[in-house]
Amino acid sequence: MAQDVVLGIDIGGTGIKFGLVTRNGEILHTDKVKTKGYPKPDPLPEDLKKRIAEPLKKLGAKVAGVGIGTPNGNYFDGTIDQAPNLPWKGLVPMKALFKKTFRKPVALTNDAKAAALGEMYFGAAQGCRNYLFITLGTGLGSGQVVNGKLIYGHDSLAGELGHVIVYRNGRLCGCGRKGCIEQYASATGIVKTYYELLRNKNVDSFRLSLGNMIDAEKICALALEEDEIALEAFSRTGWILGFHLANSVCYTRPEKIFLFGGLAQAGDLLFEPTIRSFEDNLMNIYQDKIEILPSGLKESEAAILGAASLIWGEMEDDS
Amino acid sequence: MAQDVVLGIDIGGTGIKFGLVTRNGEILHTDKVKTKGYPKPDPLPEDLKKRIAEPLKKLGAKVAGVGIGTPNGNYFDGTIDQAPNLPWKGLVPMKALFKKTFRKPVALTNDAKAAALGEMYFGAAQGCRNYLFITLGTGLGSGQVVNGKLIYGHDSLAGELGHVIVYRNGRLCGCGRKGCIEQYASATGIVKTYYELLRNKNVDSFRLSLGNMIDAEKICALALEEDEIALEAFSRTGWILGFHLANSVCYTRPEKIFLFGGLAQAGDLLFEPTIRSFEDNLMNIYQDKIEILPSGLKESEAAILGAASLIWGEMEDDS
Repeated sequence: MAQDVVLGIDIGGTGIKFGLVTRNGEILHTDKVKTKGYPKPDPLPEDLKKRIAEPLKKLGAKVAGVGIGTPNGNYFDGTIDQAPNLPWKGLVPMKALFKKTFRKPVALTNDAKAAALGEMYFGAAQGCRNYLFITLGTGLGSGQVVNGKLIYGHDSLAGELGHVIVYRNGRLCGCGRKGCIEQYASATGIVKTYYELLRNKNVDSFRLSLGNMIDAEKICALALEEDEIALEAFSRTGWILGFHLANSVCYTRPEKIFLFGGLAQAGDLLFEPTIRSFEDNLMNIYQDKIEILPSGLKESEAAILGAASLIWGEMEDDS
Repeated sequence: MAQDVVLGIDIGGTGIKFGLVTRNGEILHTDKVKTKGYPKPDPLPEDLKKRIAEPLKKLGAKVAGVGIGTPNGNYFDGTIDQAPNLPWKGLVPMKALFKKTFRKPVALTNDAKAAALGEMYFGAAQGCRNYLFITLGTGLGSGQVVNGKLIYGHDSLAGELGHVIVYRNGRLCGCGRKGCIEQYASATGIVKTYYELLRNKNVDSFRLSLGNMIDAEKICALALEEDEIALEAFSRTGWILGFHLANSVCYTRPEKIFLFGGLAQAGDLLFEPTIRSFEDNLMNIYQDKIEILPSGLKESEAAILGAASLIWGEMEDDS
């Protein structure tokens, strides 16, 4: 009998990655296409179906369902709504398009929520029924799991933890408001903090001239070389992230918090000041009870595993 | 056949109120005892049972279950843990005590969560599956309902929305930290704001001398007489509450927000600046989509109805 696999799809601004994922989280095959190859989304499902036909045959597997993680994905409607980094305008009925082609269960959600589910099925949150999953990449994304379920809220747009305002009249955010936490605690945010420190501390023009080339990874490398300003940038980023997480647990009281994404790769440089600030700012009833941990998902696999777990999760709910 | 009623109990610092509640939210009988009459909690269940025996007989009703709302109530454990305003120290196994006496389903939770459930069963949230319930009394209490269920989190201590820090190094809070929203947006908070304004604006000593007698109700009366400082106090309180609610919806994306409790009775004086600030501070994806409304529960009945709905709710889940 053919083995069931889920087609997990990660839609991004540059590429659309996809993989065949078993119930155990093994990725048997991966591939990708360029997003700009699809000025209209309609041919995408048929193209992916063709591309996986041969691998499926070789593996002796069949597709049990399709899970899609995408920016601005709406779980309830199965649509992508005005994602700023994708070529498609308006409301794209992506779930319906895939359903028409594959005639199997299809589920779609935003990328951070998908990765949060991946953490439960295939990562470090296995067995944990209440947790917070935070991605620290270009922005700050999140998934909140309460009693074993992702929180979607009224219209699937719950969990915008990156857009909680932490500094009134702070840095301008992509959402049009000022002071959102993602302008501070993200790969983008730490770069802004680093520049601010450089300017304020009036260091030699040499480093300022290097300004344009600085990214979060470079700041991490500098911090590992004990560069004072890079260390200070991590310390400040950790402080505000820890503060934000201390406020955030008042809402859902997670058992654990998982940090994922580029900035979380910095390890202790980020975790140490974050955990210190978290405990310092935490309400006493929560103190020393909530762990902040690195994600158990590989950066390269998380999105596809997360997308696939949407389907594996729904199948378990039904059974 | 005897009619089923739930014994709803509201445990407070001064009194323990209780009532017999039908499935339709009718309160057929109420009574109360003094909290200080119970230096130990053990005799309480037997006493209440005796007190309702006669009324039950007259009504031709029998007790189908007991719901208890209490400060620091833990839904999972059925205990009351170190409630500062109650005479009982340590961990009180209140649910177990009542179960022993009544031999019927017993459920216990904290008072704000119970009232939030009451809103769903008997108030303005009927039919609404995602909402935020905020009580503005001595402190700021809350219940968050997502997909028709209260959020309890890992240990039943989710939903401490009153202890989100909105001003770093702000007013000292009862929790030992500084700047918690409940020190600003509550009956206590508006009094503090009023005093601050009096001091800063250097008004005549006459009103300062009245200081000790000012409470939220008095500020409301002054504001209705167009008193400038009282109006300013409401405006500031509404602003910070609206800001806090705008941040809060990023977590659970409610369809509606209900305001309950003494300060919410001020009506437009509070709602108008709150709603204005809420919309001003809201992320664009939520704008004009979330209503802030007064609770549909009567102040005098909410606690008992809320406690009773714990049991009616559990019975529906089981059926």
